[in-house]
Amino acid sequence: MNIEDLRTRHPEHFAKAAALRVLAIDAVEAANSGHPGMPMGMADVATVLFEKHLKFDASTPGWFDRDRFILSAGHGSMLLYGLLHLTGYADMTIDQIRNFRQLGSRTAGHPEYGHAQGIETTTGPLGQGIANAVGFAMAEESLAARFSRKVVDHYTYVIAGDGCLMEGVSQEAIGLAGKQQLSRLIVLWDDNGISIDGKVSKSDITDQAARFTASGWDVFACDGHDPEAIDAAITAAKASPRPALVACKTHIGYGSPAKQDTASAHGSPLGAKEIEVVRSIYHWNHAPFEIPQDIRDAWAAIGSRGAEARTAWETRVAALGQRRRDEFQRLIAGDLPRALNGAIRAFKAQVSQDQPKVATRKASEMALAVINKAMPETIGGSADLTGSNNTLTPDLGVFDAENRTGRYVHYGIREHGMAAAMNGMALHGGVVPYGGTFLVFTDYARPSIRLSALMGTRVVYVMTHDSIGLGEDGPTHQPVEHLAALRAIPNLLVFRPADAVETAECWQLALESKDRPSVIALSRQNLPTLRTEHKNRNLSATGAYVLAEATGARKVVLLATGSEVEIALGARAILEAKGIGTRVVSVPSLELFAAQDEKLRARILPRSAVRVAVEAGIRQCWDRWLTGEGGNARKADFVGMDSFGASAPADKLYTHFGITAEAVAARAEALL
Amino acid sequence: MNIEDLRTRHPEHFAKAAALRVLAIDAVEAANSGHPGMPMGMADVATVLFEKHLKFDASTPGWFDRDRFILSAGHGSMLLYGLLHLTGYADMTIDQIRNFRQLGSRTAGHPEYGHAQGIETTTGPLGQGIANAVGFAMAEESLAARFSRKVVDHYTYVIAGDGCLMEGVSQEAIGLAGKQQLSRLIVLWDDNGISIDGKVSKSDITDQAARFTASGWDVFACDGHDPEAIDAAITAAKASPRPALVACKTHIGYGSPAKQDTASAHGSPLGAKEIEVVRSIYHWNHAPFEIPQDIRDAWAAIGSRGAEARTAWETRVAALGQRRRDEFQRLIAGDLPRALNGAIRAFKAQVSQDQPKVATRKASEMALAVINKAMPETIGGSADLTGSNNTLTPDLGVFDAENRTGRYVHYGIREHGMAAAMNGMALHGGVVPYGGTFLVFTDYARPSIRLSALMGTRVVYVMTHDSIGLGEDGPTHQPVEHLAALRAIPNLLVFRPADAVETAECWQLALESKDRPSVIALSRQNLPTLRTEHKNRNLSATGAYVLAEATGARKVVLLATGSEVEIALGARAILEAKGIGTRVVSVPSLELFAAQDEKLRARILPRSAVRVAVEAGIRQCWDRWLTGEGGNARKADFVGMDSFGASAPADKLYTHFGITAEAVAARAEALL
Repeated sequence: MNIEDLRTRHPEHFAKAAALRVLAIDAVEAANSGHPGMPMGMADVATVLFEKHLKFDASTPGWFDRDRFILSAGHGSMLLYGLLHLTGYADMTIDQIRNFRQLGSRTAGHPEYGHAQGIETTTGPLGQGIANAVGFAMAEESLAARFSRKVVDHYTYVIAGDGCLMEGVSQEAIGLAGKQQLSRLIVLWDDNGISIDGKVSKSDITDQAARFTASGWDVFACDGHDPEAIDAAITAAKASPRPALVACKTHIGYGSPAKQDTASAHGSPLGAKEIEVVRSIYHWNHAPFEIPQDIRDAWAAIGSRGAEARTAWETRVAALGQRRRDEFQRLIAGDLPRALNGAIRAFKAQVSQDQPKVATRKASEMALAVINKAMPETIGGSADLTGSNNTLTPDLGVFDAENRTGRYVHYGIREHGMAAAMNGMALHGGVVPYGGTFLVFTDYARPSIRLSALMGTRVVYVMTHDSIGLGEDGPTHQPVEHLAALRAIPNLLVFRPADAVETAECWQLALESKDRPSVIALSRQNLPTLRTEHKNRNLSATGAYVLAEATGARKVVLLATGSEVEIALGARAILEAKGIGTRVVSVPSLELFAAQDEKLRARILPRSAVRVAVEAGIRQCWDRWLTGEGGNARKADFVGMDSFGASAPADKLYTHFGITAEAVAARAEALL
Repeated sequence: MNIEDLRTRHPEHFAKAAALRVLAIDAVEAANSGHPGMPMGMADVATVLFEKHLKFDASTPGWFDRDRFILSAGHGSMLLYGLLHLTGYADMTIDQIRNFRQLGSRTAGHPEYGHAQGIETTTGPLGQGIANAVGFAMAEESLAARFSRKVVDHYTYVIAGDGCLMEGVSQEAIGLAGKQQLSRLIVLWDDNGISIDGKVSKSDITDQAARFTASGWDVFACDGHDPEAIDAAITAAKASPRPALVACKTHIGYGSPAKQDTASAHGSPLGAKEIEVVRSIYHWNHAPFEIPQDIRDAWAAIGSRGAEARTAWETRVAALGQRRRDEFQRLIAGDLPRALNGAIRAFKAQVSQDQPKVATRKASEMALAVINKAMPETIGGSADLTGSNNTLTPDLGVFDAENRTGRYVHYGIREHGMAAAMNGMALHGGVVPYGGTFLVFTDYARPSIRLSALMGTRVVYVMTHDSIGLGEDGPTHQPVEHLAALRAIPNLLVFRPADAVETAECWQLALESKDRPSVIALSRQNLPTLRTEHKNRNLSATGAYVLAEATGARKVVLLATGSEVEIALGARAILEAKGIGTRVVSVPSLELFAAQDEKLRARILPRSAVRVAVEAGIRQCWDRWLTGEGGNARKADFVGMDSFGASAPADKLYTHFGITAEAVAARAEALL
């Protein structure tokens, strides 16, 4: 619909949408930076969505049963900020809009989760929002199955652009959502035919409707500037028994004579002169950041129209039996069940006594059996490596369209989609997701792992086959640089437990870290139980601790993680036999160790002894703890990898690459 | 087709295919590790492909115009090794097959490029092969356009499994190939309906034929155990004017009563008892690794049937005019044109004199204008950020179906697909690919970047917006950990030039590194020219060099990269004004510096001075060069980032995060 027709036929709608458009234009102009074209193009769709469909109450942004609205095309952030401001979210003031993209404002260049209410997830890296949304919709279905549609009954809406749909992760999301028949997932595609390099047809000729249909979606289409058509399409999408794509044919930079339908509308301010022209086309005679009262009122009415539904929901929640209500509220708060700690402690005690020689991936399965029993909110899964990741425990049941009470997801060969979906689940709340693949394939999921860390979602990545110890699969499957690369991500906890006891402790720490994601790196190969004396205390909580003390004068300290702790203990035996007092420090998490005070760290790593670190990965993150800042040893060395691995049985590889007790002992002795 | 019908109707085919099947079964059994199910399932398709279609000559594996065969489903490596052995590749002896998955053998768990002739690319991480293949097919089209179909005229065949098609990167590859109408790309899909967790339908209901068709492919189908049907489908696919998918309906573990059509056929040995049963079903009465002479002869004939075509091709190449022939052979050898060094030197001289204040991304564009002119084999591109990455230079022309002489690819918003395609181009040979995106989005491409490093492909990643210096786009777009995470990858060169001169030098080093990929990290923000005195010598070649010497006694050494070198020089000015002699070392590449001998390194980083490193990223990779092993300074410090960034103008962010000349000077002074 052309803009003059829109204005004359739907004057009230037009004015509301114009407010969104102008806010975006003016904020981008003030910042001299940003993306006006998308908000200008999608303002009509967003206005109809918020006015007629989205269930929300701006006065209570945390209302658990609200519809979720995800701006996957995050560069159009001003569309979201405009919506939040106009509908009356308290923290999205006009000053925030004025300070778009400025230091300390809530209005970052791309929507940042936690910066303002109503931002459901951090977007900007393309394809993430649509893939998060799959997790939101899965969490909704899971909780609805558990607590009934009386208290969990909402949609998840996504605005996605061509960029989102071209990213590979979108295919993983589409495939997963299609298989899962997530009927409450609705993607509004900003079908404007323009990407940064020009027309989308320069790089893609995909028939998106056919593509989504191929994966089990229903597809609807509308003129994205015709409010009635938009309304009808969303209404149809809501009624569909499958996830739905609504292809909204739009014009990027709608209404700008110089920029509409061109890539130049995408990522730069319109400029003062063009803004003047556009204002007159919009019949908008107000100063920047000034919204006339009638339009303010109209938007405020939209912002509060969900209040009644919200209070009705509160009444329904209050009517739940005490026990169910408490449980529901515990899940919403993200608190752990009281029984968990005791269960983990009992498991540790049992394992210290039984002393199994199992791979830590198997130990993780044993710990998970205990955790999953105590925590009905866990939703596990694997990217098609269930038997290898040991992520499935008894009685979970498979989560799918036929069984929404199932708690195990067959994610398919979709590491990236899995990670993004887990972010969505954690953000939705009420569930605690974990998922597995091989550690080396964290590379496939890395953009989403980074966002877990940036947002602080409680997602647990169960990453098995964590070194050359996986053996014959060879260098493509052997992580060498991955521990370092993951430790490099701010706010991410990386655990590498050495035995079954540490594995349980690391799981406990991961679950207790409400605002941080965790990677638990686990061995394929069997390892002995090293913690044979039970302690209630979680020794892994300090990140590193003395596992075996020197018998005589302490001359050597060996640091190791995971499967290499056994090797360090072997080296200690050799050294002690020669009368060289040797301490072994197990280091399940460098991040937690770094967070300890210097005194404790110095106690664990005394400067007086020479020091060797052992890890079947690269050295990069260890220098700090050797002669570097955090370690400050007089003399130190490292035994690990400095190249890719090879294909051979694990024991042969350890020998080949010189990661043996003998080598560690020799390197330590050489320092003395 | 059931196995008895196949054997009786096509006995010769059956025997040849049985040889492949049994080799796979026996090698996996001997290794007690590996994947028999896929070779058993796809042996018929592979036999028909090699017997009737694939253009190759086992005696001359490097024949440049051979058809390329890519086993994207790399876990089925024994299928490839069996084919190479039976067709007579000299280095794939029966002993290599016997030593499947053993240390030092050519027969790694997954096919490793460079381990044996006929392995066109390293596969195993799923989806990579199919995405590499797009690059192979693009390189073929490009070279054919340049040198005519007389000397470049081949197909690229791929065997891909369900895992490849579920990985997101496959969608990027499919979309790119469809847009590019790569008619010589043929994907043979092992449609067996089984993945590791069980039936594919547990996680996916995608109609793959519809999905490929949606992106502009032609789709054919066949019974993957019927040689005539396979032959007909491949014949039709070759005639298609579009890229073609051949859906081969197969049975995983074909012929194994206990394992066929189950996930248990996928990744474990069949076991002695089942092998006995399968042998009788195959009517195979030979000992492990024993191939009867008639079958050997039949396969050998397949291996040599391309000899005539190959010599005919050699004749055609010889008939090229001298100049064209020399050029063609230079490209095949991957040698740089003689004029390149001079052109870069002249550019450096010019820039040293003009002293432009430009972003290094702009400097890269300026260098590329020179390089692209001197090197007709470059193929540039960007993942839809052409104007931001500055990857397009004049007169390249756009490479697409209408213009195969174009040298610039609009990859679309497909970082991963771009990287994988560039690997394919480099592996094909004859072209030198480079491609751009934002540095932060190396995360999206990381699995392919790792494979560039593992294979040693000459791919240049042009990664702009390399720090918080990109400003307002905020933390989702600001790399913080990415330099560290990339430096962690073995064999990858990471460059971060400080000005236009260094940018040219880094480009030169990247292009000269025939067996290594490079990442060139480039600033969004303008930077002054620091190298104002021209030197012919490439000072960046040692990785680090003294950019500015202390005027008096040297008390401080400042190390910096990229945009922070300017800050280090500012700090030097402050310190020198206080009479503190300060050297500034520019560090365009830590990898190259690490490769220098200790004496040179100690000359550049003398132990006598205190040391501060400055980089707007995390510290992780710097400890080694401070008080750690490689640096061994008495006292040292680091100025950089230890958290995610924020959304604000660049200068505000540098101040906010304390990366300023004043802060660096103060930290250095505090050490004295």
